[in-house]
Order: sequence, then structure tokens, then C-alpha cells
Amino acid sequence: MKTTITSLSNPRITAIRKLLEAKHRRQAGLFVAEGLRLVTQALQSQAAVRELIYCPELLVSAVGQNQLMVAEARGIDLLEVTPAVFNSFSRKDTPQGLAALIEQRWGELSETQPSAGSIWVGLQAVQNPGNLGTILRTCDAVAASGLILLDDSTDPYDPAAVKASMGSIFTVPVIKSNLNALTAWLANNPGIHRIGTSDKASIEHFQTDYPLPCLILMGSERQGLPDEYIRLCEKLVRIPMEGSCDSLNLAVATGIVLYQVYVNKKAGAE
Amino acid sequence: MKTTITSLSNPRITAIRKLLEAKHRRQAGLFVAEGLRLVTQALQSQAAVRELIYCPELLVSAVGQNQLMVAEARGIDLLEVTPAVFNSFSRKDTPQGLAALIEQRWGELSETQPSAGSIWVGLQAVQNPGNLGTILRTCDAVAASGLILLDDSTDPYDPAAVKASMGSIFTVPVIKSNLNALTAWLANNPGIHRIGTSDKASIEHFQTDYPLPCLILMGSERQGLPDEYIRLCEKLVRIPMEGSCDSLNLAVATGIVLYQVYVNKKAGAE
Repeated sequence: MKTTITSLSNPRITAIRKLLEAKHRRQAGLFVAEGLRLVTQALQSQAAVRELIYCPELLVSAVGQNQLMVAEARGIDLLEVTPAVFNSFSRKDTPQGLAALIEQRWGELSETQPSAGSIWVGLQAVQNPGNLGTILRTCDAVAASGLILLDDSTDPYDPAAVKASMGSIFTVPVIKSNLNALTAWLANNPGIHRIGTSDKASIEHFQTDYPLPCLILMGSERQGLPDEYIRLCEKLVRIPMEGSCDSLNLAVATGIVLYQVYVNKKAGAE
Repeated sequence: MKTTITSLSNPRITAIRKLLEAKHRRQAGLFVAEGLRLVTQALQSQAAVRELIYCPELLVSAVGQNQLMVAEARGIDLLEVTPAVFNSFSRKDTPQGLAALIEQRWGELSETQPSAGSIWVGLQAVQNPGNLGTILRTCDAVAASGLILLDDSTDPYDPAAVKASMGSIFTVPVIKSNLNALTAWLANNPGIHRIGTSDKASIEHFQTDYPLPCLILMGSERQGLPDEYIRLCEKLVRIPMEGSCDSLNLAVATGIVLYQVYVNKKAGAE
């Protein structure tokens, strides 16, 4: 028999609310994906979905109700809650009554082998979760093999990052790393071409080629790429600009460089 | 003698708070730019700054205090307020104690002549203010002549758009328009090349040239470019992608196409 959770202080609900905070997400190794689209993508991907939380009064979509059956058939726990309970952890203005509790998945850099033709992206100390999610989406579009988060980067499992990724959080491998580990990895994989971006570079991003496999290194929103990472690069490129602004949004800049790499790859394959 | 506003219900403060809402911004034709960086950029630009609002307890930066003198020398009203009053309209987690009340500036499409070599961007029904502001920033970087907001687009003077523009709201002309007005403008300016983006286009964005002056038309986040705008285009391009995602973030997609146009322009100029 199904029971509906009606209490805001139910321990399973309290645990879900806590996952809105980075600290608790880190401790639990879990995160919440909310909404029809994200939950559907999670179930279609290899993501380890622990349970679905749903609210019958809010879940009016037939597609959404169908996801419950998909999940049940796969032995995933279903947690029925009241509107008040669902709204207590929802981040949407109009909650759709469907969310998933999912295991975080982190790649291990030392166990990762860059295959021929692969594209890797390294973000150093990215601060904005929306930027991070948007970059995951672009990585997916160019079939990048993985995103390496260097140093103190924001959490890809932050609700804003998960939302901006539009489901790419389930498909693009994410690896946490730092200068030492990256340096060791590059030493063990000398075939990977290391290209950094810097506003002081003399080569413009469209004036050079991008031999593969390659790692594209991008600095943070405010500081750009630090010198110790610049020194790891065999080539530095800059995106030309004029006008009054002195930089582009990080997700836009990453998109422009990644598409240059991707277009280069497609041209080489033809 | 200077007086400090201490009351949250002071009419000048109430008016500023109301400007956080689109309806009141539209009626007043004004907007608020908050923070050291934005206020400095506003004063350095041609923006019509009506008054500066500052809070001495929060405005600890010497650069910020200097802006008060710059403004005073230009005859701009200074409004001193208490921390509680400043916080009542601030959108920052750590308010810097400086904001500006500025007149909105809208271009008129029928009075606009596309000059040789100019790049124009048309956004149809853009919904997200962060995307809109980010696109303004990219327009600035490629020295686009103006951004044309078509149909029901979000407000470029929304605080999130102003913030994401990183000051480009003060430098990139913004024009409000619709299908009829755009059609008439293009008929009066037959020399402008009209290039649309569509996931159904047969040409990939890097496989073609972009003769100038040109208008790049982008659809909304969810729907893409509607058929009636597609019909205005002499050429349609698509951004190739693979992976599980079926689209890019709108600001990223616009950045990729705009940089293709810009790089094309630079190559032609060399």
C-alpha cells in the first residue's frame, strides 16, 4: 500500500531539502533533479536514480505520469508527497510535481585515457553554476569526452548548474582535479595537445589549428587562467574583441573556442 | 546642507524600488544600475544618469567615492541613504552602497541606417534576461551596431540583464520592433543581408560567408525562429551538434554565430 508523505519534517524530505546546499550534497554524494524534462533525461541516461519524488496533484502531465511507471518497472523507489511537501524543496516557480534523487558521478583523472580525436575541457575555478551548466551543455554538443574542474570550482550538482546543463550533467563525464594531478596526467599522456586561452595570447582563436586529442583550458570568470596553468600550455589563443567591454561571458567564450575545435575536427574528418 | 534619507517609505526610494518591476520600468522609462563597476561604466558612457544613490556606511571603496565627485561636478543629483534604505532596493548579496538612476534609451528602427560593414542582431522573443544581457556583451565585443528586440522579448533594463551585460547596456543601441516594422525596414534597406539560424538549415554556420552589412536573426530559447521570420532570410545557417542535447544555450549560440560573422569581417578587412 502506498503512503503519502504529508509532513514537512519527514526525514526523507528533510534530507532532500538539505541537498539544496553544497555542503550536504558533497557529504551525501547525491543531488536532486527537478522537472519533467530533467527527470525524463535522467531515466533515459546511465544516471543512478535512487528514487522519484512526485506529487499527484501537481503532476498533471501524462508524460510525467509515464515516467513513474518507467521508474517502477526498474525497481526505483517512488515517494508520493503532498503539494506542500513538494513545494518545500522545489526551486521552480510552477513546480511540475516530479523530481529525482540521483547519485553524483565523478570521473577519476588518473584512470582516464584520452582517446584519439577526443576533446577535453578544463575549467579553472569557475564560479557561476549557471556558466558551468551551460558549458556542460556545449561540451555535450561537441561530444567532448569530459569536463575537468580544477581547483575551487563551483558544484556541477548545484540546482542552477543542473538546470542550465539541460540534461548534459547526465551524459558528460565530470572530473575534479587540481594543478598537481593535471600535471601528472599530462606527463602520462604526452600525446594530448594543451591549448589555453588568455587575453595576452598573440594568436587569435581562429588563426590556428587544434590537433587532437586536445585539452582546452579556460580560466575563471574574473581572473582568467593563472600563470601556473599557462605554463602547462603548448599554445595560447585569444578571442579578439573591440568595443568597450574587456571580456566575454565565460560560457560564451568557452563555446566560441570549443566550436573552433569542433569545426576543425569536422573539417579534418571530411 | 545634505540630508540623509532614513525612511523606507520616502517617495524617491519607493520609486526606485518599483523600478525592480518591468511594468514600472516601462511606465517611468528609467532603470537602476547597481554596483561600483556598473555605475562607473554608466558615468563613462553617454548614459543619461539622473541621480546617484549612495550609502556612506556601505561605500567604502575610494573608487566609488570618487564617482560621487565625478557625478556632482556634472550636476547629477546625489541621494544619501542609510544602509537599511539602500538594502531595501539592492539586489546584491553584499551591496557596495552605490547605485544610479538612469534614463532608458531606445533606438528607432525606421530612423536607423545600416552603414557599410555593420553587423546587426535581431532576437525574436528572447525570454531570459541573463541571456539578453550576455548577448549585449557579445554584441559589444564584436562592435555590432545594434540589437533589435522583436515581439515579446524580455526587458534589457531588467536588473539581471543589466548585470549580465557588464556595462554593454550603456553602449550597444537597443531597438524594439516587430515583424511588420522589420519587414518595412528591410524593404527600405535592401542592401542589408538577412541571415537566420535554424536547426533545419542545410548550411552549417562555418561553411558560408557573411557579406556585410548583415542582420543575424536568432529565435527564442524554446521555439527557435518562427516561419514568418525565416521567410525574411536570404540564407539560413545551423550550428552542427552531436551528443544527447538538441540545442545550445541561446547566448552561446548567438556568440558562436556572431564570432563567425566577426572573424569573416576581420578576414575581409585584412
